[in-house]
Amino acid sequence: MPRKPSPIRSDIAWSNRTRIVVRGKSLPDELIGRIDLGHFAYLQLTGRMPTAEQARAFNAILVTLVEHGLTPSALAARLTYAGAPESLQAAVAAGLCGLGSVFVGSMENAARLLHEALPGGPAGADLPAIARTIAERYRAEGRILPGVGHPIHKPVDPRAPRLFQVAEECGLAGGYVALMKLVAAEAERLSGKSLPINATGAIGALCCELGFPWKVVRGFGVMARAVGLVGHILEESEHPIATELWLRTDAEATAHLREPD
Amino acid sequence: MPRKPSPIRSDIAWSNRTRIVVRGKSLPDELIGRIDLGHFAYLQLTGRMPTAEQARAFNAILVTLVEHGLTPSALAARLTYAGAPESLQAAVAAGLCGLGSVFVGSMENAARLLHEALPGGPAGADLPAIARTIAERYRAEGRILPGVGHPIHKPVDPRAPRLFQVAEECGLAGGYVALMKLVAAEAERLSGKSLPINATGAIGALCCELGFPWKVVRGFGVMARAVGLVGHILEESEHPIATELWLRTDAEATAHLREPD
Amino acid sequence: MPRKPSPIRSDIAWSNRTRIVVRGKSLPDELIGRIDLGHFAYLQLTGRMPTAEQARAFNAILVTLVEHGLTPSALAARLTYAGAPESLQAAVAAGLCGLGSVFVGSMENAARLLHEALPGGPAGADLPAIARTIAERYRAEGRILPGVGHPIHKPVDPRAPRLFQVAEECGLAGGYVALMKLVAAEAERLSGKSLPINATGAIGALCCELGFPWKVVRGFGVMARAVGLVGHILEESEHPIATELWLRTDAEATAHLREPD
Amino acid sequence: MPRKPSPIRSDIAWSNRTRIVVRGKSLPDELIGRIDLGHFAYLQLTGRMPTAEQARAFNAILVTLVEHGLTPSALAARLTYAGAPESLQAAVAAGLCGLGSVFVGSMENAARLLHEALPGGPAGADLPAIARTIAERYRAEGRILPGVGHPIHKPVDPRAPRLFQVAEECGLAGGYVALMKLVAAEAERLSGKSLPINATGAIGALCCELGFPWKVVRGFGVMARAVGLVGHILEESEHPIATELWLRTDAEATAHLREPD
Repeated sequence: MPRKPSPIRSDIAWSNRTRIVVRGKSLPDELIGRIDLGHFAYLQLTGRMPTAEQARAFNAILVTLVEHGLTPSALAARLTYAGAPESLQAAVAAGLCGLGSVFVGSMENAARLLHEALPGGPAGADLPAIARTIAERYRAEGRILPGVGHPIHKPVDPRAPRLFQVAEECGLAGGYVALMKLVAAEAERLSGKSLPINATGAIGALCCELGFPWKVVRGFGVMARAVGLVGHILEESEHPIATELWLRTDAEATAHLREPD
Repeated sequence: MPRKPSPIRSDIAWSNRTRIVVRGKSLPDELIGRIDLGHFAYLQLTGRMPTAEQARAFNAILVTLVEHGLTPSALAARLTYAGAPESLQAAVAAGLCGLGSVFVGSMENAARLLHEALPGGPAGADLPAIARTIAERYRAEGRILPGVGHPIHKPVDPRAPRLFQVAEECGLAGGYVALMKLVAAEAERLSGKSLPINATGAIGALCCELGFPWKVVRGFGVMARAVGLVGHILEESEHPIATELWLRTDAEATAHLREPD
Repeated sequence: MPRKPSPIRSDIAWSNRTRIVVRGKSLPDELIGRIDLGHFAYLQLTGRMPTAEQARAFNAILVTLVEHGLTPSALAARLTYAGAPESLQAAVAAGLCGLGSVFVGSMENAARLLHEALPGGPAGADLPAIARTIAERYRAEGRILPGVGHPIHKPVDPRAPRLFQVAEECGLAGGYVALMKLVAAEAERLSGKSLPINATGAIGALCCELGFPWKVVRGFGVMARAVGLVGHILEESEHPIATELWLRTDAEATAHLREPD
Repeated sequence: MPRKPSPIRSDIAWSNRTRIVVRGKSLPDELIGRIDLGHFAYLQLTGRMPTAEQARAFNAILVTLVEHGLTPSALAARLTYAGAPESLQAAVAAGLCGLGSVFVGSMENAARLLHEALPGGPAGADLPAIARTIAERYRAEGRILPGVGHPIHKPVDPRAPRLFQVAEECGLAGGYVALMKLVAAEAERLSGKSLPINATGAIGALCCELGFPWKVVRGFGVMARAVGLVGHILEESEHPIATELWLRTDAEATAHLREPD
């Protein structure tokens, strides 16, 4: 008995001979030249045009995530470009493949923590009590709280206060931001150590304020980093480092095995 | 004799305990909350802050490239997500891998054509004569001119006039834009067919006006499409089509081979 | 205070002007023309040459995983190739990106289950008691046992008995294989439903018999599927389906949005 | 007017409740436990079972390509794994993305050169005259001949004579191998320098002997390297180098920009 097909449907975009429409807006008439890339990202993801404040806050998140120096992701992109300079897109793809649990997981986990702590949203919730429960549970289970502390940026990750300031200015410093701050304060109190909120905690909270599901938060890191990686590849094409990195690493790593020629 | 190591150097970004600096600007103080993602992309790539006009024109290019419906790239991302929903970044990467010669090549080729036609820049060049030579050469060699005509959008690709309008408003409708228009007009005259400039031709010209090397132009498609693909993956997570697509395709494609159970 | 560098070291391969050595073997003299690809894979991963039986069993695992028709992975590779035919490697990469929790997770989970059930190895373990505990725990927690049952291949996944037969012939039907069979029998008994071991259960057990850590088991799917995907791309280059798939899908998915030209 | 759909068809594999068939062979009955991975690769690609000699020669090609030390491809895979250890498949994909014109192009170009030089096959061709023409044309155009010379392996790449020996033993040292050798000899004569055939030249010739189209030759590097990369990722999971590589490289590359804390 043959399988009955299910319908295939997408609500993002359509075009015909004369029109190109994205999320119900005419691309040439209403979008090109009128909104910026971060603004469009919000529309693409939510189906709604952001307010000026939402667009500003969302751009602030994305701008935070574009560039972090010669990270493993940037190195992977450059090493890939060295072998396939005709496939710039594949070099970016290689760099994105590593944006997993280690580097963007914390942002995703912070958003998830806040979402799950406030299943009905922040209105009417006893935020201090919830924060205490969370901090105590993580401590009892010996787990690391997502979004607080930083191995390098001490005593404070300077991106976090700036993101909270932008949130404030945009009217987006609501219950999720408050809860994130309370959780960090409780964790500090319990541990006796300085545990300021880091960039991933601030971004996680802001993503909740903007209404994004936690599962897509990783995607913000991905789209921002795509921008950053194109920059690294352009620099690699002009001032390459990949071959030097390869030759040095191979020589050092196998010195204990090598025999003379 | 051991190889003498060459230095490894990058001029994009650095950070220490208290500071994060990209292209000489403090990320928290000068960038987050002050500029949008397209603006940052220009800074990341060129090392210079764009003027308001440059930022607007560059965002217009990127906005044009985000979304084109259920393209092969979007389908590849969705099919990948269906198998590895825990690796959203790998689904975006898979979608980007196909942005090669067929889909973004035309934009790159248009930029290259204009760059190579004006090696010293447009100042003082006899644009009509150069346009005639180009159109005649392509015709004589039976090659397709990049950036003109479109299989679907007829008689006019509506993105192209809009992009040229933005270029005009931003003071960026210079010699490269003029040459692109002259080349298309010559090609129309020679072929006797309507050959309006398409989006890739307009973008190629605008990229030249903004001073980008043609080799990086493909990267604009990559960064914009990364935004679009995250949108497709979010929709796939809520209203999936990948499994249906798989089952239908496999059933149809192998019907001629299958034996009854 | 500058960081003290740690050493970088790899034990896989080295070469100089006249020699190329992999895992201590001369590539030209001891490997090329003497062993097959699956055999080499075992050497590459373990640092040891397999016995003839180990090589046969390992090749059997890999052969099982090469090809499954027009899977999401094969479709993603073909759609990617359609956009970037000059980057065959990126099309394979796109196809591999989806080999995640949904499609290869079961194999990995089966291997992990067996490893964790026998932390000291199978010698002297009370396998029937362990199997009962496992089946009861999964049932109590409402979790699906990895490696048993199959949505399509009923009543039996024909790959599983064949893999067990090969294991038997190769002297590799030891305690892990026995435990996998006992677990499946217990699960059948508890559920009252037919729950035969599927290919992923058989492969998981065989990987344990061969001594592989469960974390690398997914890699066997990846290396085998790379072979399969090159086959799909070759067929796509000769008898393409990607563009048809794209046009059909886009037309159907957006029919509810489209307006007449 | 709606587009008329074209049929979608694949001839590689099909399955139903009880059977899994690849290239007309029952996977459980005729393939698992009977053939090795390289053997299956030949079947997957050509639709025909190889003779023992073809299988041996094809495995020899693949074995040659698995492993080359800490190449850019291996480093990209390891750096990717460090960020997303839960996505082993994406780390392999990242490593494969760089197998482009620089690293596998030479093999592809050698096969293409030989194919195009003998459009009707080698039978009856005046191989010495053709070789002379080729070598003279490349010299006149200042182009590098694919498949000859090697930057490291001097005076001889030891893989090449071994591959030719295997070809001889397998009855595959036909006209393409002969032409490759003649071309190299002519190039040596013209340049006055030692230009022995390297591994990519031998592989290119052998691929022609086996009847593969040159466009798929790159795919042999891709499938073999997938095996090698899983080995590197396994080593990375046990003895990591990626983080050290990142920290060293970032520190060195940005030392000229950094200010004290």
